[in-house]
Amino acid sequence: MSYANQLLPREKVFRDPVHNYIYVRHQVILDLINTPEFQRLRRIKQLGTSSFTFHGAEHSRFTHSLGVYEIARRICNNFQRNFPSKTPGDGLWDDSERIVALCAALLHDIGHGAYSHTFEHIFHTDHEAITRKIITNPSTQVNKVLLQVSDDFPQKVASVIDKSYPNKQVVQMISSQCDADRMDYLLRDSYSTGTSYGNFDLTRILRIMRPYENGICFDMNGMHTIEDYIIGRMQMYLQVYFHPVSRSMEVILNHLLLRAKDLYRANQLEPELMPYLLIPFFNQEFSLSDYLELDDGVLNTYFIHWKKSNDPILSDLAHRFIDRRPFKSAKYDKEDLSTINKMKKLVAGCGYDTKYYTGIDNSFNLPYDSYDTKKEIHDGQIKLINPDGSFVGLSDVSDLVRVVTNKIVSENRFFFPRELIKSDEINLFSPMVEEFRKHIKNDHIINE
Amino acid sequence: MSYANQLLPREKVFRDPVHNYIYVRHQVILDLINTPEFQRLRRIKQLGTSSFTFHGAEHSRFTHSLGVYEIARRICNNFQRNFPSKTPGDGLWDDSERIVALCAALLHDIGHGAYSHTFEHIFHTDHEAITRKIITNPSTQVNKVLLQVSDDFPQKVASVIDKSYPNKQVVQMISSQCDADRMDYLLRDSYSTGTSYGNFDLTRILRIMRPYENGICFDMNGMHTIEDYIIGRMQMYLQVYFHPVSRSMEVILNHLLLRAKDLYRANQLEPELMPYLLIPFFNQEFSLSDYLELDDGVLNTYFIHWKKSNDPILSDLAHRFIDRRPFKSAKYDKEDLSTINKMKKLVAGCGYDTKYYTGIDNSFNLPYDSYDTKKEIHDGQIKLINPDGSFVGLSDVSDLVRVVTNKIVSENRFFFPRELIKSDEINLFSPMVEEFRKHIKNDHIINE
Amino acid sequence: MSYANQLLPREKVFRDPVHNYIYVRHQVILDLINTPEFQRLRRIKQLGTSSFTFHGAEHSRFTHSLGVYEIARRICNNFQRNFPSKTPGDGLWDDSERIVALCAALLHDIGHGAYSHTFEHIFHTDHEAITRKIITNPSTQVNKVLLQVSDDFPQKVASVIDKSYPNKQVVQMISSQCDADRMDYLLRDSYSTGTSYGNFDLTRILRIMRPYENGICFDMNGMHTIEDYIIGRMQMYLQVYFHPVSRSMEVILNHLLLRAKDLYRANQLEPELMPYLLIPFFNQEFSLSDYLELDDGVLNTYFIHWKKSNDPILSDLAHRFIDRRPFKSAKYDKEDLSTINKMKKLVAGCGYDTKYYTGIDNSFNLPYDSYDTKKEIHDGQIKLINPDGSFVGLSDVSDLVRVVTNKIVSENRFFFPRELIKSDEINLFSPMVEEFRKHIKNDHIINE
Amino acid sequence: MSYANQLLPREKVFRDPVHNYIYVRHQVILDLINTPEFQRLRRIKQLGTSSFTFHGAEHSRFTHSLGVYEIARRICNNFQRNFPSKTPGDGLWDDSERIVALCAALLHDIGHGAYSHTFEHIFHTDHEAITRKIITNPSTQVNKVLLQVSDDFPQKVASVIDKSYPNKQVVQMISSQCDADRMDYLLRDSYSTGTSYGNFDLTRILRIMRPYENGICFDMNGMHTIEDYIIGRMQMYLQVYFHPVSRSMEVILNHLLLRAKDLYRANQLEPELMPYLLIPFFNQEFSLSDYLELDDGVLNTYFIHWKKSNDPILSDLAHRFIDRRPFKSAKYDKEDLSTINKMKKLVAGCGYDTKYYTGIDNSFNLPYDSYDTKKEIHDGQIKLINPDGSFVGLSDVSDLVRVVTNKIVSENRFFFPRELIKSDEINLFSPMVEEFRKHIKNDHIINE
Repeated sequence: MSYANQLLPREKVFRDPVHNYIYVRHQVILDLINTPEFQRLRRIKQLGTSSFTFHGAEHSRFTHSLGVYEIARRICNNFQRNFPSKTPGDGLWDDSERIVALCAALLHDIGHGAYSHTFEHIFHTDHEAITRKIITNPSTQVNKVLLQVSDDFPQKVASVIDKSYPNKQVVQMISSQCDADRMDYLLRDSYSTGTSYGNFDLTRILRIMRPYENGICFDMNGMHTIEDYIIGRMQMYLQVYFHPVSRSMEVILNHLLLRAKDLYRANQLEPELMPYLLIPFFNQEFSLSDYLELDDGVLNTYFIHWKKSNDPILSDLAHRFIDRRPFKSAKYDKEDLSTINKMKKLVAGCGYDTKYYTGIDNSFNLPYDSYDTKKEIHDGQIKLINPDGSFVGLSDVSDLVRVVTNKIVSENRFFFPRELIKSDEINLFSPMVEEFRKHIKNDHIINE
Repeated sequence: MSYANQLLPREKVFRDPVHNYIYVRHQVILDLINTPEFQRLRRIKQLGTSSFTFHGAEHSRFTHSLGVYEIARRICNNFQRNFPSKTPGDGLWDDSERIVALCAALLHDIGHGAYSHTFEHIFHTDHEAITRKIITNPSTQVNKVLLQVSDDFPQKVASVIDKSYPNKQVVQMISSQCDADRMDYLLRDSYSTGTSYGNFDLTRILRIMRPYENGICFDMNGMHTIEDYIIGRMQMYLQVYFHPVSRSMEVILNHLLLRAKDLYRANQLEPELMPYLLIPFFNQEFSLSDYLELDDGVLNTYFIHWKKSNDPILSDLAHRFIDRRPFKSAKYDKEDLSTINKMKKLVAGCGYDTKYYTGIDNSFNLPYDSYDTKKEIHDGQIKLINPDGSFVGLSDVSDLVRVVTNKIVSENRFFFPRELIKSDEINLFSPMVEEFRKHIKNDHIINE
Repeated sequence: MSYANQLLPREKVFRDPVHNYIYVRHQVILDLINTPEFQRLRRIKQLGTSSFTFHGAEHSRFTHSLGVYEIARRICNNFQRNFPSKTPGDGLWDDSERIVALCAALLHDIGHGAYSHTFEHIFHTDHEAITRKIITNPSTQVNKVLLQVSDDFPQKVASVIDKSYPNKQVVQMISSQCDADRMDYLLRDSYSTGTSYGNFDLTRILRIMRPYENGICFDMNGMHTIEDYIIGRMQMYLQVYFHPVSRSMEVILNHLLLRAKDLYRANQLEPELMPYLLIPFFNQEFSLSDYLELDDGVLNTYFIHWKKSNDPILSDLAHRFIDRRPFKSAKYDKEDLSTINKMKKLVAGCGYDTKYYTGIDNSFNLPYDSYDTKKEIHDGQIKLINPDGSFVGLSDVSDLVRVVTNKIVSENRFFFPRELIKSDEINLFSPMVEEFRKHIKNDHIINE
Repeated sequence: MSYANQLLPREKVFRDPVHNYIYVRHQVILDLINTPEFQRLRRIKQLGTSSFTFHGAEHSRFTHSLGVYEIARRICNNFQRNFPSKTPGDGLWDDSERIVALCAALLHDIGHGAYSHTFEHIFHTDHEAITRKIITNPSTQVNKVLLQVSDDFPQKVASVIDKSYPNKQVVQMISSQCDADRMDYLLRDSYSTGTSYGNFDLTRILRIMRPYENGICFDMNGMHTIEDYIIGRMQMYLQVYFHPVSRSMEVILNHLLLRAKDLYRANQLEPELMPYLLIPFFNQEFSLSDYLELDDGVLNTYFIHWKKSNDPILSDLAHRFIDRRPFKSAKYDKEDLSTINKMKKLVAGCGYDTKYYTGIDNSFNLPYDSYDTKKEIHDGQIKLINPDGSFVGLSDVSDLVRVVTNKIVSENRFFFPRELIKSDEINLFSPMVEEFRKHIKNDHIINE
């Protein structure tokens, strides 16, 4: 039997809080799980700074990746049981695609690093490019495992993830409006944060999913189940992913890494606080193996080191991040930008370097969303299939979905040190502080 | 109003996957949560190496500590509603004890460090002593917060945790056969590992719990609910906490730290791989603040560094730990020790330094259990109260509990590199390997 | 202590699949539960014919009524803890209203009878008037219990239910867009049908609920939680309450009772099949005690008797109902009415009496909805309160809710015997059958 | 394709609160579900009088039967996937047995009637014999459906249920210590009563279940999971099935039916209260179709009629049952029988006919247990299989199970009217009442 189809002597299971059991039957899947590149995902939190807001959100990308694999496996099972292809090109499911689908599902996030989004912003890395590299570069164990299937298999898996793979059923199973990736993260994030918004009826969605010639569609009679899923997703964005406290910690993280880089480049970082594994990134000359040595703990370790720095900004920001001292924030609209400039001056007047102590972002700057928004645009909308085989777009028949689609809009926030609005903590510069405070009402910047 | 009784302007909640909501009304509790010492617990996994076996077991001691607080809070509410003391010494609940109970519940694990058990073994630290120190030493933020309540309050909180506090109701709420600590960890570990063994009826246990003059007892009519809890606990030990793979990773961790220490002492650790924050421990001269800088991520970061060491043992063990390459193991009885010696020689013959590549442990060596066993001995058994006010010991009326109590016995295992029994991975020394393998049958060491 | 405030020697609990525990502390509540009128609710299914579609929907109005009581109790607790009135008229919660609120919550459905909606339609009963009567009429045990509180207490409880009670907080707790009644039935129906649509975050809704001078409002920052609840409610209507098969069984039930009444009035009902307890209703002269003897089982028993009737229509309809042989149906629009008339003629041509074998209804004819729709109109919309104390209507700020509110529209269906479209079951009149079938496409009536 | 293997055009699902989805693919299964005999099970509660204690226990035998079918289906799937027979007699699973297994699972309870146990006791019916008759007698729809599979198929299905079927894997799947029947009822009863004792890890049990030549065994490494199941079962017996209040309602039911029968035989039952459908049973000459017309609602309807009887005992007992007025009870040991006789005389002295107003039973008299106990004896114990293929009995290796097996012992109770121990309700005969009360202490009969 070929390696691609080689089954384990006995099916292996992983107990999982969300899916109860994750079933592994293929040797190649087990071998991929056992690579150092995949094990590394254990040390990277799925939700990054969100756990500062929702303490239960401690699950890793390892755990999520297993979950995506499991959902993809169930989709394959369902397709194979109910919609098996009989002749090539009949638009039904060809089960020889299963192994490439499962590998892509498992590996779709393999290139993610610690605090991906901010890290990418500061160091100009790109987790999608790195995912591709980990899969196709001969230096990795992942690549070695995949090569055992066939010479072109790594390339195939990578092309599923970057959506250039010809079979759109496989592509959309991993990456579309309603794919294994999103379904797992909604359930898992919902579960671990202790909220219930992201909960939806997974079993029923799997039942109404169908392959067709150009991808995956859904039975019209399951329309309300999809609506439920879409609304659940929106709720997770609004209530969890876009939470101002998480975003504020992200701003601090960004400024902390920026300060360290600035100091390093100015040769002002103390030798004993030198972040051994980050140096290639400071120098903008990093290899894949440099990247693969990083994880949340590594970055946090350096931040702990930096709390001892003589540079007051570096040590203060490290303290704010490690010991969870979020910035405060207020919403603003475009027309408030001049007010923000005024406010920045007041912050400066209170002695803060505004480059490191203020920030603006909109909710789309969060890792989750930027990723997502891109998908929305490229993927087009969910297709429903009528009993007579004709298709309609979900938002053409669902008023709710239309509303939701328009609703996930960017929310802009201006971030600043908490001391500026907590009266008992600062008083030296009180007239400026008082003026600063006048510009905020009901969580919003105002023009007096 | 005194700081002890100062309530937040509005009750604060933390969403939690196990308890749904955790309610905080006291300023002192919120202030404790915000100390760096408590925030540090976010970076220490509750179950240490267990997540190598149960991937979902990624929750931190921070999360668990909040849960213990919440259960203690519910116990206080229940006691106050149903058994409020009317006159001092009537054996009922005096709600002025609430705040010391809640603080002790929250802080009971504050002294835990990264991979506590192994770390203690190698570096001779003691998390119980450190807990006491964090609470009572003026250098910590925790101490500063507690001092605001009163001068002797830190000492009081510490004495609840070390069980010398005079009010035994408070002591047993935090630390006894059926306390807030154990109830939270069983539920939480059960939940996150995706197993269901540790599940029990928390609400009903809280209902049958009663204060009496010497501590906490349980209504006789809830006897079966307690049985259920005790059996659930046993199942968690047998199926989760004592899992051979987790124990094997613990053995590797132990040997890895030992090797690093040995190299450091021999001046053979490469300077660029020097574990900045561990040095005080290598030198056996560490301060409390040295201890508080450590966490899982810090240790893992050094292990990642050490994968590059020129010392083949250090780099290999670091690789085995970081990339999850567990040792294999087999059970043994006392009379098998000579066989184990024979086997060790065979391992040595295959080129392994047996000091670093073999190990024996019994299940009680695991962090969870050693802690627990001590408790069992000191705490005495669970007391049931009859309708007429007389008491009986749980194991005097429950055959099941008697069996269970005897059942949690030590299981001895001998650990060795996996290559020795996986035929395709080693063949140079095949005769020795073959002989080695003859000594293992059905997961047990045999004397041929 | 007055009877109103008389507490049980020990709090009593009822285990519940939805709320886990239901807590009863007041003697009056326990006494009400033990009245024959309340016990009767055990024998009446909450969802009537829905259990023919969702087999798990077997819970009774007894169970639901306990649940409504429990939610009301939690609301009172929350109001009392967080918003206690200090001076009369301050718009906060006056806990002396608790007992009337709890009694009204428990008794709000006490007047419901077997298959309420259809029964009312045929026999011109009115469950709301009967609820009032049971509470205020001296012949009932419920009234006797309530009178022990005070002479005007029965009247007070009744006025809460009919919304004329002056304290609008109490009224809206029991009956408004987001009240204890709806919250319990959504959770419970969702749970028992095995669907998840009606699930929402009860704990969080309770947290954001606030009393104000004119009733109950919700914190603005919980807006999305309310949205989630509203959408869940809509989903339950669309997917559960309006299910065509349940509605079809309701049509059969209607025609069966109608046929029995027609036969009785024509003196053609066999004496040995005489429905002893229904006769007062056939004669349109029934007393309260006649009404209280009816339940689902009583009606079903007569239907079982009637299966043996010599009247072919009565026995056939009884068989269709008891043995679950639903009619089929198709949607229609207003302009299809002439087509329906044509179709009816074809049904008649096939030998069916169309009075008993066809039917039209719209989804609002279902018990659940008619009840509900009335509420929507009278209750006005959900109010949100801003941090500064100003109010906004939910649908003024939520696009989703606006869509949903418009979305619950009536769906019209035409019902007819299944044989007409299942080809293998009828063939005598095939040309008519064939023509009949041409008028249906994709679950819709068409004009050829 | 033969009818036995005829699949539905599209897999049908039933939403279920316990199993989420129940999947039906075979036409024969759907046809069986649609028979009047099976639909009748909707009108019979699974737990009879238990819902008087646990109000949520309202589920029917219909619902349970679907659940047993679903578990059997999953077992078959698992066996077919992992242990398919290759050559006849190899002790593995022959999937051509699937259809007889599924039919037997679905129909195993088809002969149950309303309040089975008590009914059988009074009217000498036997639900097991009736099950056999419904399956094999040509008068039923069930038989007609089964005959379409083959002439001997009804007989085969019946023999699975009575355990004479040659393939012991099929027999034990439906009826053994750990079978589809028990697994469903534990989960479902646990769920609906709102207790958690009967919860166990169904998925894992299914994973460790294996066919072998003489039936079904379990992997040794799943021993603790089986323990957990066995202990959960015991807890359900102790806490739910044997609950004294449910047993007390069963005693009242027994006496009520007995009184009606006695009156009927003495020609003293009023004509207008004549229980039309019970007469054949009073006369001890009933047919299968007489039996199939009965259900819970039919009996309750007659009880409601009887509340109006002029016979004070009949109307009083009917009231006690319908309006839930349970007898009180106390435990007794064998040596207390003479005390009980004394107590009975006191009850008589208070004016009660002791034939109808007192009762003794032991817990094994409950429907659940008698059924079960028989099974225990015939089925032998659970077999575990070692890696080397050898077997051990579960109670040979599990101390817990040994204890549990001995623990389910009979508990004897003496039942009597509540008035005798509630002081405010009776006082006419106070000296006798006072003496009566002296014989009860701590829920136990005492000899003064």
